Amino acid sequence: SKAISLAVIPGDGIGPEVIAEAVKVLQAATAQEPVEFNLREYRLGAEHWLATGETLPDETLDQLRSHDAILFGAIGAAPGDTRIPSGLIERELLLKLRFSLDHFINLRPAKLLAGVQSPLANPGAIDFLVVREGTEGPYVGNGGALRVGTPHEIATEVSVNTGYGVERVVRDAFRRAQQRRRKLTLVHKHNVLVHAGHLWRRTVEAVAREYPEVAVDYLHIDAATIFMVTDPSRFDVIVTDNLFGDIITDLAAAVTGGIGLAASGNINMEGTAPSMFEPVHGSAPDIAGQQKADPTAAILSVALLLEHLGLSDAAARVEQAVEKDVAGRGTAVRSTAETGDAIASLLAVR
Amino acid sequence: SKAISLAVIPGDGIGPEVIAEAVKVLQAATAQEPVEFNLREYRLGAEHWLATGETLPDETLDQLRSHDAILFGAIGAAPGDTRIPSGLIERELLLKLRFSLDHFINLRPAKLLAGVQSPLANPGAIDFLVVREGTEGPYVGNGGALRVGTPHEIATEVSVNTGYGVERVVRDAFRRAQQRRRKLTLVHKHNVLVHAGHLWRRTVEAVAREYPEVAVDYLHIDAATIFMVTDPSRFDVIVTDNLFGDIITDLAAAVTGGIGLAASGNINMEGTAPSMFEPVHGSAPDIAGQQKADPTAAILSVALLLEHLGLSDAAARVEQAVEKDVAGRGTAVRSTAETGDAIASLLAVR
Ligand SMILES: CC(C)[C@H](C(=O)O)[C@@H](O)C(=O)O
Ligand SMILES: CC(C)[C@H](C(=O)O)[C@@H](O)C(=O)O
Repeated sequence: SKAISLAVIPGDGIGPEVIAEAVKVLQAATAQEPVEFNLREYRLGAEHWLATGETLPDETLDQLRSHDAILFGAIGAAPGDTRIPSGLIERELLLKLRFSLDHFINLRPAKLLAGVQSPLANPGAIDFLVVREGTEGPYVGNGGALRVGTPHEIATEVSVNTGYGVERVVRDAFRRAQQRRRKLTLVHKHNVLVHAGHLWRRTVEAVAREYPEVAVDYLHIDAATIFMVTDPSRFDVIVTDNLFGDIITDLAAAVTGGIGLAASGNINMEGTAPSMFEPVHGSAPDIAGQQKADPTAAILSVALLLEHLGLSDAAARVEQAVEKDVAGRGTAVRSTAETGDAIASLLAVR
Repeated sequence: SKAISLAVIPGDGIGPEVIAEAVKVLQAATAQEPVEFNLREYRLGAEHWLATGETLPDETLDQLRSHDAILFGAIGAAPGDTRIPSGLIERELLLKLRFSLDHFINLRPAKLLAGVQSPLANPGAIDFLVVREGTEGPYVGNGGALRVGTPHEIATEVSVNTGYGVERVVRDAFRRAQQRRRKLTLVHKHNVLVHAGHLWRRTVEAVAREYPEVAVDYLHIDAATIFMVTDPSRFDVIVTDNLFGDIITDLAAAVTGGIGLAASGNINMEGTAPSMFEPVHGSAPDIAGQQKADPTAAILSVALLLEHLGLSDAAARVEQAVEKDVAGRGTAVRSTAETGDAIASLLAVR
């Protein structure tokens, strides 16, 4: 049986709780497969930084590179915790991983599962995929400030976009659209962000010629948020930049029942470094350690991980088990582990 | 009676139709007031550009400066019209007006009126105000591109934020919050956009000390979109930058019944140039000239205009007339003029 080396970064807050269930489901889903997962846990995050002063040392990053994939929980301290400079862990751990490991595809499916309550009165059949660029845009950390703290302060943020970077994510989005309902929507704001916007548009137009069966449309980010609440079933594949993708995927999670269900993959499609799978939600310090967190988003991230590793059958089984479990949840309150157990047992008895 | 000089820019598409009703209501609302509106119409927009090649000549801009205020319809060609470079009219007319006339407060109220259907299943009582910065951020047009059209292309967009610019909008938002339910939410993404984000945060913290009665909170833009669909009644005043404000106000319009109802003011609070009032919606070329457009957003923009001119009673009457009309609309289809007439007649018979 094939050995797969998996790094596990549980992180902070509810991270360890949801990751415990994700691992449980991973084991249950692959018990009959000719693979063996070797897990290695890495302690990283806000707690680790408080204890050691380390965010992501080069040595740890190198070790992470040696794995086949990474399963990531959630990181970040409580909003009121002034011991940790705001955003430090996010940037020096999470974003550093995405950038260093060249996770240029940030894949975020949005599907309204049967039995899940949408905040929308008439949600319709929601089932789309956001392909968010993961290594460029306003996330590059390019910018600065002058005369800080004076009335003459000036602070800049530079969005950097490249032909190379945009083309690879646009190609990926077309490939995925071709295998789905063949509709691709570019979301940007090209009437204002002219240079970046035109690069995105030209790239989509050029690649579209190779995919004559894929219908292409365009929405400004502001208009896209409107459709997300008035007609979300219009979307199949959305391709967009790092910041617009961040915004639209949280909104997409909300209309499909909340970030307790939203999975994501930070994927290096070229295979030059391990990809990383994580729930879209944060560390939710307010409910940490209380077995209150919903592990479903982490479990659906395992499905994306399995799919990425070529274990499509196991991935499909995890998705089906989640759909079955979700459909029957009703209003009963369950602990994090009870939800994990319920999904794992659906995988065992098949 | 006092003479008020008003520039009217009907623009393209449905702009002229909704502006005709807005002017009708303006006249009806002020018939008993000791004021006289002198209107001067300016032909500007995509149609005008096609006919003359002009967007906003310096001479026209100078003439516009001489008015007490500007009423603006909507501009922009049909999305498929390739004769007009995309975004040209938006940038060289609309944004040029906002920037040249120093419209640093982009004021956008969001209120769910009785009788209006929200796309949310449980919208609650939505009534908040977005104070969007109007002259900085990613809208400044600072950026460029290198090696365009090659695989080595690089395109940048620079968000420029100043202490001066952020402080004046934050102060304005606190003043408005003090007069409302005393809650102010800063929306940004300071964990990623560090320099701009910290300028905004520090400014809010500093000004907050002068408003001890105003409760302040903070949301990342992604989280703000979630609350906009799960708990919009939590908001009172939102203060945010130009781009996040663009996004969140379209979403806010959607959850309060659509951009057919969303009004806005581009306000120069220092009075160094005329302020400009416009519906949030665009020119909707697909329904132009058919009397299908809802003029309510333009009419509510007239209420903001009246308030800005110090005619608070007339402003309140327009709002009340709109609320009354909207509450009784039911499902009957009315023409643009019928809706304008209905609201104007409610103002006449009081
Ligand atoms: C934590 C933060 C840096 C991150 C992002 O902005 O990408 C998060 O919001 C997400 O969407 O994964
Ligand atoms: C037309 C466009 C430039 C404008 C903006 O982005 O500000 C519009 O979306 C708005 O919100 O008024």
